[in-house]
Amino acid sequence: MEKKAILLASGGLDSTTVAAMAMAEGFTIYALTVFYGQKHDCEIAAAKRVAQALQFREHRFLDIPIAAWGGSTLLAGASPAVPTHRSEEAMAHGIPSTYVPARNTIFLALALSWAEAVGAEAIFLGVNAVDYSGYPDCRPEFLKAFEDLARLATKAGAENTRVPTIRAPLLSLSKSEIIRQGMGLGVDYAITHSCYAPTDIGLACGVCDSCLLRLKGFAEAGVKDPLPYKA
Amino acid sequence: MEKKAILLASGGLDSTTVAAMAMAEGFTIYALTVFYGQKHDCEIAAAKRVAQALQFREHRFLDIPIAAWGGSTLLAGASPAVPTHRSEEAMAHGIPSTYVPARNTIFLALALSWAEAVGAEAIFLGVNAVDYSGYPDCRPEFLKAFEDLARLATKAGAENTRVPTIRAPLLSLSKSEIIRQGMGLGVDYAITHSCYAPTDIGLACGVCDSCLLRLKGFAEAGVKDPLPYKA
Repeated sequence: MEKKAILLASGGLDSTTVAAMAMAEGFTIYALTVFYGQKHDCEIAAAKRVAQALQFREHRFLDIPIAAWGGSTLLAGASPAVPTHRSEEAMAHGIPSTYVPARNTIFLALALSWAEAVGAEAIFLGVNAVDYSGYPDCRPEFLKAFEDLARLATKAGAENTRVPTIRAPLLSLSKSEIIRQGMGLGVDYAITHSCYAPTDIGLACGVCDSCLLRLKGFAEAGVKDPLPYKA
Repeated sequence: MEKKAILLASGGLDSTTVAAMAMAEGFTIYALTVFYGQKHDCEIAAAKRVAQALQFREHRFLDIPIAAWGGSTLLAGASPAVPTHRSEEAMAHGIPSTYVPARNTIFLALALSWAEAVGAEAIFLGVNAVDYSGYPDCRPEFLKAFEDLARLATKAGAENTRVPTIRAPLLSLSKSEIIRQGMGLGVDYAITHSCYAPTDIGLACGVCDSCLLRLKGFAEAGVKDPLPYKA
C-alpha cells in the first residue's frame, strides 16, 4: 500500500531536505507550494526544480494573497524593508519583523485539506525551532496543538480512522546538521533557494537573515554553499 | 477604543445574522468572504449586498482553489452532484458528501491571520451544530481546539497579550431561532443567499439541503422567506 505525504515545499534548503527524508522513509510526495504575497520568480523556479529533481508525485501551487492585510516585513510592499546584516543575537531577540501572521496555521490547514482529499497519512514541513526560535508557529507545542485540531477537524478524526500526523523532522536540528543530513541523502543544494530579498535576476543577497543562516550552516558543516551570491 | 471583529461572511442567512449580532455588541466588522471553487456570481453578489447593507468597515474576498483536489460534492466539477430532496433523517446521517475537507480550519486560519494584522479581538462565524451535525468542523470541540491553537500560533499568544476569541453564536440554535434573532435585529433576509445549486440567473433551487433547511426554518419561525425560488 502506497504511503502518501503532503509536503509544504518552498524550494528552500529546509523543505528540500525534509522531502529527501520523507522519501527515504518510503513516502510518495504530494508537494504544496504556497505563495502569500512574497512571490519571486526565482522562488517558483526553485520549487519547480526541486519537484522535478526529486520526482514528486504531484506539485501544486496556491496563491494566498494575505499580503494585502500586511503585518510583516516579508510581505510585498511592506515597509520597513527586510532586515539585513543582523547578528545572531539580534535575530534571536523577540518575534522577527519577518513573522507573517498565522502563516504556518494557514499552510497546515491547506495541507490538511489536501491530505484528507488524497488520503495522505502525514504532513511534512521544514519548520525549525533553533534558527526560527522567535516565530510562535515554529514551536513544537504549536505543531502538537495543530495535530490535536486535525483530529477534531476532519472526517477521519470524526470516524476514528487515521488522521494525518504532523512531521517536522528538522525541528531541533541546527542548520549545519540539516545540511549534513541532506548531503547524506544526496540533496543537491544548488537547486534550492533561501534568500528573502533576491536581486532582479534571482541572485541571493547574502545579507538577509535567511542568507546569513544558510551561509553559516554551510560554513559549520564544512561544505561550500553551491549557490552564487550577489555579495 | 474600537472593538474589531473578523467575520467569515458568505452572504448567507447564518453569517448575515451573526454580523448583526456582532454589531449589536458594538463590534466593527472586517468581513472575509472565502471562495473555494464553488463560486457563483450570485454568492459574490449576495456577499457584497450584505457588506453594503450592514456597512462593514472592510470586506475582502479570497479565492482558495482547493476544489482542484476534490473530496466534496460541493466543489465545482464534482461528481456526484449536490444531493437534493433529502429528508432530515438522511441529512443527519453520517458526514454529508457536501463536506469540504478541512474547510473551517482553512477559513479560521485565514481569519486569524487578518485578526492579528488588524488587531481584532474576536473572529465570528456562522457555524451551527444543529443543522450541520454531520460536519466535524462545526462541533464546539473543534472551535475550542482552534482557540487553543490560536493561543500558540500567534505573536499575541507568545507575548501573552490578547488572542482573538472564536465566536460562534449560532452554534446551538435551530434555523427558526436564528431567523427570529435576525429579524429582531432588523436583518433583511431578501439580500442573503443560501442555495448550494442556484440556477443560471441566481434563483435558489429549493431542493438542496441548504434550501430545505432554510425553508423549514422560515416555516417554523412563522415567517415567509422573502427569497424567490425556482421550484
